[in-house]
Amino acid sequence: MNSPQPQGILLAAPEDLKTPGDDLRILVRADAPVAGQVGIVTGGGSGHLPLFKGYVGKGLCSGVAIGNVFSSPSSQQCYEAAKAVDGGKGVLFLYGNYGGDVFNFDLATDLAELDDIEIKTVLGRDDVASQPKEKAEDRRGVAGIFFAYKTAGASAERGDDLETVAAIAEKTVSRTATMGVGLSPTILPTTGEPSFDLPDGEMEMGIGIHGEPGIRREPLRTADEIADEILEAIVADLEITAGDRVAVLVNGLGATPLEELYVLYRRVHQQLTAKDVVIERKYIGEYATSLEMAGASISLLKLDDEILELLDAPAHSPFFEQKEH
Amino acid sequence: MNSPQPQGILLAAPEDLKTPGDDLRILVRADAPVAGQVGIVTGGGSGHLPLFKGYVGKGLCSGVAIGNVFSSPSSQQCYEAAKAVDGGKGVLFLYGNYGGDVFNFDLATDLAELDDIEIKTVLGRDDVASQPKEKAEDRRGVAGIFFAYKTAGASAERGDDLETVAAIAEKTVSRTATMGVGLSPTILPTTGEPSFDLPDGEMEMGIGIHGEPGIRREPLRTADEIADEILEAIVADLEITAGDRVAVLVNGLGATPLEELYVLYRRVHQQLTAKDVVIERKYIGEYATSLEMAGASISLLKLDDEILELLDAPAHSPFFEQKEH
Repeated sequence: MNSPQPQGILLAAPEDLKTPGDDLRILVRADAPVAGQVGIVTGGGSGHLPLFKGYVGKGLCSGVAIGNVFSSPSSQQCYEAAKAVDGGKGVLFLYGNYGGDVFNFDLATDLAELDDIEIKTVLGRDDVASQPKEKAEDRRGVAGIFFAYKTAGASAERGDDLETVAAIAEKTVSRTATMGVGLSPTILPTTGEPSFDLPDGEMEMGIGIHGEPGIRREPLRTADEIADEILEAIVADLEITAGDRVAVLVNGLGATPLEELYVLYRRVHQQLTAKDVVIERKYIGEYATSLEMAGASISLLKLDDEILELLDAPAHSPFFEQKEH
Repeated sequence: MNSPQPQGILLAAPEDLKTPGDDLRILVRADAPVAGQVGIVTGGGSGHLPLFKGYVGKGLCSGVAIGNVFSSPSSQQCYEAAKAVDGGKGVLFLYGNYGGDVFNFDLATDLAELDDIEIKTVLGRDDVASQPKEKAEDRRGVAGIFFAYKTAGASAERGDDLETVAAIAEKTVSRTATMGVGLSPTILPTTGEPSFDLPDGEMEMGIGIHGEPGIRREPLRTADEIADEILEAIVADLEITAGDRVAVLVNGLGATPLEELYVLYRRVHQQLTAKDVVIERKYIGEYATSLEMAGASISLLKLDDEILELLDAPAHSPFFEQKEH
């Protein structure tokens, strides 16, 4: 399990991260466990950097367990991560809603509770294209989980108890909606082959971060048209209306140039402003990728004062820096 | 000239950036001109984000002029940028060594001097694959210019005079060496066509950031073999020996996953450590891209106390954050 890439991250950031044992697929904050702080463990398959390892740090998650490419970590790895970050106030499992991850984190919950570590679980479920709103509980988690890491991490960092940290995470997830578009398939490193078929000149609206099918496949449209369709879906989903305040995340899925993310952001800004929606914060870049898939996603987080304060709290990881605001 | 992407950046970061007139291809710090500070203007073609616009900010460059994709900005644009950042202590032009850029920045120098703005010029020339060491003056500038932005920017920020800021930039450039590898061609947005031909399963060692030919084309090798060859070239070029201190930049050219950059970093770390070279700082991510080219480059900066102090000075732009160290 000790592949070169996790070793590279540890070699690059020994002041920030450590592995609690000898399995490099489990990373925790270098100062873990932090006494008197709730621990937050995330995880999932590899191939999504900076998701998941990039969000282990101060004011973010405390630990992570990673599986092979697009594969769940084992229950034992999730359990080891929980043990390593437990500072006596319990541990929140915060990860995306995928079957394998749920299965293994749930088993890890049983193991941790045998050690008297209290566990709560919140699932990222922001992908509006994966299920209609009536089935929002079954939606997949995609890039928008970043917002929950940030707010729950800030809550844990200030010493909130497990119930509060979990409630903050759940509140953030319930106010986050994301939709993506894929322009080229992911190439799997194990085979060198595309993981799904997407001809040149076509795009998949609503694609998942493992290339899961979206809403429909169609010829490429302009960035403005793509932004409009995604915005319409996520604004409606969150019932955002004039006067509401939001944070925007325009996320690149891997191969899409930053230039194009700014083209998308421009349209998002224009459209939200025209609706009198206030963009309080914006995040533009690669926050959750799918190896070298070309494509992007747009997420909105509907803010209130509490969430905005937690978003702005200082945070630090090798991949993410939030200064004092 | 007012394309959607520069507009997106301005809409996203109005607290950090502004345009001095109505040409969005010219961006300067929101607080420009800063009285009593040397201005630093960079520029070049678009398609390389975060190069160049990403490095306009506190402790970095003060302004930028951008051309079309992979094309030089005009002399008028470079001149306008210089005028907008001149705080009375002169302006450093700091950009990569490409014919069109040199031509237009030199014309802009003449225009600025008519306005009694003193100009000095330092060219990024870090690509060891572009010319042998005897012709180091003719080398192209690639990702390693990031180091010169950081040190010269810190020098300007602390109030050094133009001669000192230029000397710091030149010292940094002369101690920086980079080599890249390309795994897939750039797709030009204007045509949707690859800008050069690179068959699947082959790579181009020493490729430039516009797809310029490198040293040779050959079948794909492992990440460790690629890192070894690049390191050998740049370590020899800088005459780095046991006991030397370096900063490492592992840069993604666009489509290469961050995971793979960490695989490269791991090998760089192992090899330099084995040579008793001390890695004081490391930067891993996308610092200078070529639209969606797959590939990476490795840069080394040979440190001394002065350069390390300037690297560590605080800096802030929408794309780059350096906290107090």
